[in-house]
Amino acid sequence: MTLSVAVAGATGYAGGEILRLLLRHPAYLSGELRIGALTGNSNAGASVGELMPHLPELAQRVIEPTDVETLAGHDVVFLGLPHGHSAQIGANLPESTVVIDCAADFRLKDADAWKRFYGTEHAGHWPYGIPEMTGHREKLRGATRIAVPGCFPTGATLAAYPALKVGLCGPDVRVVSITGVSGAGKKASVGMLGAETMGSLKAYNTAGKHRHTPEMAQNFEEAAGQTVNVSFTPVLAPLPRGILTTVTAPLTPGVTQQQAHEAFEAFYADEPFVWVLPEGAQPQTQHVVGSNMCHVQVEVDEDAEVLVITSAIDNLTKGTAGAAVQCMNLALGWDETAGLPQQGVAP
Amino acid sequence: MTLSVAVAGATGYAGGEILRLLLRHPAYLSGELRIGALTGNSNAGASVGELMPHLPELAQRVIEPTDVETLAGHDVVFLGLPHGHSAQIGANLPESTVVIDCAADFRLKDADAWKRFYGTEHAGHWPYGIPEMTGHREKLRGATRIAVPGCFPTGATLAAYPALKVGLCGPDVRVVSITGVSGAGKKASVGMLGAETMGSLKAYNTAGKHRHTPEMAQNFEEAAGQTVNVSFTPVLAPLPRGILTTVTAPLTPGVTQQQAHEAFEAFYADEPFVWVLPEGAQPQTQHVVGSNMCHVQVEVDEDAEVLVITSAIDNLTKGTAGAAVQCMNLALGWDETAGLPQQGVAP
Amino acid sequence: MTLSVAVAGATGYAGGEILRLLLRHPAYLSGELRIGALTGNSNAGASVGELMPHLPELAQRVIEPTDVETLAGHDVVFLGLPHGHSAQIGANLPESTVVIDCAADFRLKDADAWKRFYGTEHAGHWPYGIPEMTGHREKLRGATRIAVPGCFPTGATLAAYPALKVGLCGPDVRVVSITGVSGAGKKASVGMLGAETMGSLKAYNTAGKHRHTPEMAQNFEEAAGQTVNVSFTPVLAPLPRGILTTVTAPLTPGVTQQQAHEAFEAFYADEPFVWVLPEGAQPQTQHVVGSNMCHVQVEVDEDAEVLVITSAIDNLTKGTAGAAVQCMNLALGWDETAGLPQQGVAP
Amino acid sequence: MTLSVAVAGATGYAGGEILRLLLRHPAYLSGELRIGALTGNSNAGASVGELMPHLPELAQRVIEPTDVETLAGHDVVFLGLPHGHSAQIGANLPESTVVIDCAADFRLKDADAWKRFYGTEHAGHWPYGIPEMTGHREKLRGATRIAVPGCFPTGATLAAYPALKVGLCGPDVRVVSITGVSGAGKKASVGMLGAETMGSLKAYNTAGKHRHTPEMAQNFEEAAGQTVNVSFTPVLAPLPRGILTTVTAPLTPGVTQQQAHEAFEAFYADEPFVWVLPEGAQPQTQHVVGSNMCHVQVEVDEDAEVLVITSAIDNLTKGTAGAAVQCMNLALGWDETAGLPQQGVAP
Repeated sequence: MTLSVAVAGATGYAGGEILRLLLRHPAYLSGELRIGALTGNSNAGASVGELMPHLPELAQRVIEPTDVETLAGHDVVFLGLPHGHSAQIGANLPESTVVIDCAADFRLKDADAWKRFYGTEHAGHWPYGIPEMTGHREKLRGATRIAVPGCFPTGATLAAYPALKVGLCGPDVRVVSITGVSGAGKKASVGMLGAETMGSLKAYNTAGKHRHTPEMAQNFEEAAGQTVNVSFTPVLAPLPRGILTTVTAPLTPGVTQQQAHEAFEAFYADEPFVWVLPEGAQPQTQHVVGSNMCHVQVEVDEDAEVLVITSAIDNLTKGTAGAAVQCMNLALGWDETAGLPQQGVAP
Repeated sequence: MTLSVAVAGATGYAGGEILRLLLRHPAYLSGELRIGALTGNSNAGASVGELMPHLPELAQRVIEPTDVETLAGHDVVFLGLPHGHSAQIGANLPESTVVIDCAADFRLKDADAWKRFYGTEHAGHWPYGIPEMTGHREKLRGATRIAVPGCFPTGATLAAYPALKVGLCGPDVRVVSITGVSGAGKKASVGMLGAETMGSLKAYNTAGKHRHTPEMAQNFEEAAGQTVNVSFTPVLAPLPRGILTTVTAPLTPGVTQQQAHEAFEAFYADEPFVWVLPEGAQPQTQHVVGSNMCHVQVEVDEDAEVLVITSAIDNLTKGTAGAAVQCMNLALGWDETAGLPQQGVAP
Repeated sequence: MTLSVAVAGATGYAGGEILRLLLRHPAYLSGELRIGALTGNSNAGASVGELMPHLPELAQRVIEPTDVETLAGHDVVFLGLPHGHSAQIGANLPESTVVIDCAADFRLKDADAWKRFYGTEHAGHWPYGIPEMTGHREKLRGATRIAVPGCFPTGATLAAYPALKVGLCGPDVRVVSITGVSGAGKKASVGMLGAETMGSLKAYNTAGKHRHTPEMAQNFEEAAGQTVNVSFTPVLAPLPRGILTTVTAPLTPGVTQQQAHEAFEAFYADEPFVWVLPEGAQPQTQHVVGSNMCHVQVEVDEDAEVLVITSAIDNLTKGTAGAAVQCMNLALGWDETAGLPQQGVAP
Repeated sequence: MTLSVAVAGATGYAGGEILRLLLRHPAYLSGELRIGALTGNSNAGASVGELMPHLPELAQRVIEPTDVETLAGHDVVFLGLPHGHSAQIGANLPESTVVIDCAADFRLKDADAWKRFYGTEHAGHWPYGIPEMTGHREKLRGATRIAVPGCFPTGATLAAYPALKVGLCGPDVRVVSITGVSGAGKKASVGMLGAETMGSLKAYNTAGKHRHTPEMAQNFEEAAGQTVNVSFTPVLAPLPRGILTTVTAPLTPGVTQQQAHEAFEAFYADEPFVWVLPEGAQPQTQHVVGSNMCHVQVEVDEDAEVLVITSAIDNLTKGTAGAAVQCMNLALGWDETAGLPQQGVAP
């Protein structure tokens, strides 16, 4: 049997990355998986060759409009739409269709947090696509509705989760995440021009204004079993892909460097996509570009009485499209790692 | 039967890229291909994890010294050594071993050109690894000694070859190639520091001084069936990977835009790794990063009476390691495209 | 007496660079020059502080609409408007006002070339702002209408002009210019996003389609005293500022390396803003960033029988705003170098 | 009278930037200041033209060896040497010579902190070159020995100092500073190659290991009047120049956004080189490149109960050479702002 996959919002960066991964997925190469409708709104009618020349195999494909009719009849539907569009489409696709949403719509459990940060009615909560969080892999297996996490929360959660879970640090977490420019999406704006972003660094949506803040808090609190204070500062840096996250939190008295490192190694021992680096090494985003990996390091700063955790991901792969494919694999009962490179495109 | 592969000079950029590709090669994934010795000189004794953290699967592997003993006993040996070291190693490996040399040693047929540009005795000539050149694919099938082309000659040849072969232009070719910084290799130098190369452009080895010039001339003359004048100007640009080549040559009188474009489409009609873009589109290196593709465009400038050809490759993939794997596939009688992505890692 | 300067289109990159230079101009620092109206269309009403935070001294200034009323009453008016708007404004300002136009409107002498490349009626021809071209400095002194050259023609002309003038090469010139992204201006577009331009190279407006081609031809023909064939290939590279130009042309038989280099040194001996580098060195754009310099090198490629010339400029300074201020200095009878740094902001 | 200035370590990035600034300094342009000996060790005998082509005016100058004899006889001596070399040179220059040290040797007051982080004997403490810190400007006026601050401490201190001084936050400060690659100096190393740093982000010397940590603590404690816990995480980003610093600290209960912003505006009201941005704007390093400015923003995160401060400087200008020239101006009793641009080279 051949399963068929549709990608809504296929011409954005997330959509393009999903397609890049699917085209090398063993199920696609063996004919088990078929790439069906590719949709977009402003780009409907244009060819993939014009819009995404990095996918020559699909060059002749024509982008269709994003609507339920076009997406219906597929076994898997990836949604790479702006926030607020997934609920209506999700509601109109059969329950048996695997719907994997890359937008924020179904990430938050707390309706008040949703309303405060997004300004609309809360659509609900779907199984949340970080299988590395305790208990989540099980919920994703066989799921037919999945919320892919935000890119910043992915980097921050894979960094902070074990520390909060094991109690290496207290519930007062400060996250500074430095991101490449593809995180802003493929939308024309003066502020995201090459001339404005090359050779420059800039913080934005600081002091709790970034919408990924409540998603981090949700994950951190799940780990800590208590309320966690989250300060989040995103910084834009001149590279196409990659997020380097730094997490600092008050060190639990008595925790040693060795204990902290061993706790992380133990927590991620069986994870195919998280590598706790040997002591002394630091994650570098170049090493994970194009891969589904997260490289992590944890250190004890005894003077400052702070736990310092750093992580590196590719915002488009483990941060979005790779996570989406990982979730698809779990949903379909396939090998979780199928089609997901561990090798980064370095240098 | 499992074939075993060794990589000499594994810790350089070419070596690392060969390994990145091998780790996703279907023969490796199915167990038909085994990654054997990884060698390096100054790095012998260090682990892959320290030197190439983008290849976590091999992190525990230890780099061995580069010598014949270590390399012997493998079915395929990739040589990613500085120019001048391959002849001796090649001579001491069994004739049945497939030796794929990424250095320049066996690229040139003309001993005088070799001596003039490299200053040493000419080692000889091996089958040359651009299968897209007429007649070369046949020589690469089943070969046990293969010379992988230089990165600049690959971009320039895939651009100029059909034009010279079909006679769209005269034998006076000017090549300007703009390259990313990984082309200079992983060797410490002030001139290649990030601070010296970011935000900057610089020509180098201009006016016929670059060693890739005679290699281009050899390929161009093979296409044209006559002597070809080659002016080559390499330019260093601030990106990690990618070569954008511009070729200009005197337009053969009467050749129209349509004829030129159709001639290129016809010439590359069956090639899996060359895409002649639709008229109006221009190659962009981002679209081929990490892939084995070459995107090409050809245009007639009637005013200047010049044929303008542009091509984009990833210098480490189609420009080196991808070509090497493509040659391995041909040498072993495998599907030529196995393990070689057509998808670029864009953006 | 205090002269007053207005800048129309002040919020674009050219306008901002003119202001950056004026704020360090000795006449401004001494109170001889006053910065008057700053105009823009879409940005009228906004403050300089919001739009150009790199000019804190002007932060409180408010952008006015671009119209003749606002610009009238100034002694010097810089026009940094889209092509096609300068003629009407120029015609309505007093003849005694020094009008310095950074657009293309008054650069070309040939009305047919204008119509072909710009599609509108030819507005005329003003003294052309490359003082380094023979005879032009004299025409710029005391002029009240000046056409600032295009950025590509500046880099290409300063490279090719002496060679054509002295006869080092024949009249068949191929120009490949690699430019930073600020050349495209401060206008939102998907193709100029950071994510589309970082880590990527792309040729555009190839094969004679770029509007700077006839401007180059005009300058080259003035030097050569005959018709010159011009092939021009612009390439976009991932840096904010800088143009590296490579010029190749058929070497005049018998011309030696020494002759070529000495001819360039002689030609530019008295020029404050052109540095013919010592033999063996190559221009690098980093060394001229923010300065009004052009670094040049010339070489003889005996094998290819080609003269190779390279030049580096900052497209916003010597390529636009620096040239404009240089022209203002000449127009007002001031020291030509006033306020124009020779020092590049490297690294 | 003409004063003469020597620069020791002139060929490094700090030395080159000092020269760039001096060449536009009004005292140099008027002949009051003369650029004397330029010294370097490994580069002695080479010309400035070869080593620093961005300074064409000095191209013919030859680098002399760094020794007391060469440096003696100057009125001002800038030291841009590796840490540990300034004490001996400083001790052997006349007391009346103004010695401005860009190394760390005389920054720290605490001999134990020095020994712990630098491993050698403490040389002592000189007036510290952040005039914006309360009381320091007075000590710098007429001083003949000055310690220029480190680049990270400059960015962090200008951000955190007013908050700690005024009591907007508690004494538990976490600093994450993202820096361009010129901060690592002009020394060949594999890790700082363009290919290793472009398109990549990496933290380093984390968890209290960076030598700038005790310097920050010293400044913070001076502001707070009590012990301050400092956690410092430096991150390397792919740009030549610029440091973006993020500071978070526990918000003093009851402090409002308005109070915090007004306190910063009041504190820096008379400072020529610090701009507290209007509320809603964020510092961007591009806007301060090549200038001596520091752009600052402060915000209250009520949810996280955290004060968030961000600052942008050019690490080579306000972070090193600009501060050095500012200190020279104060030492010589000149206008503090002479020769120091407020305009950034943007874009």
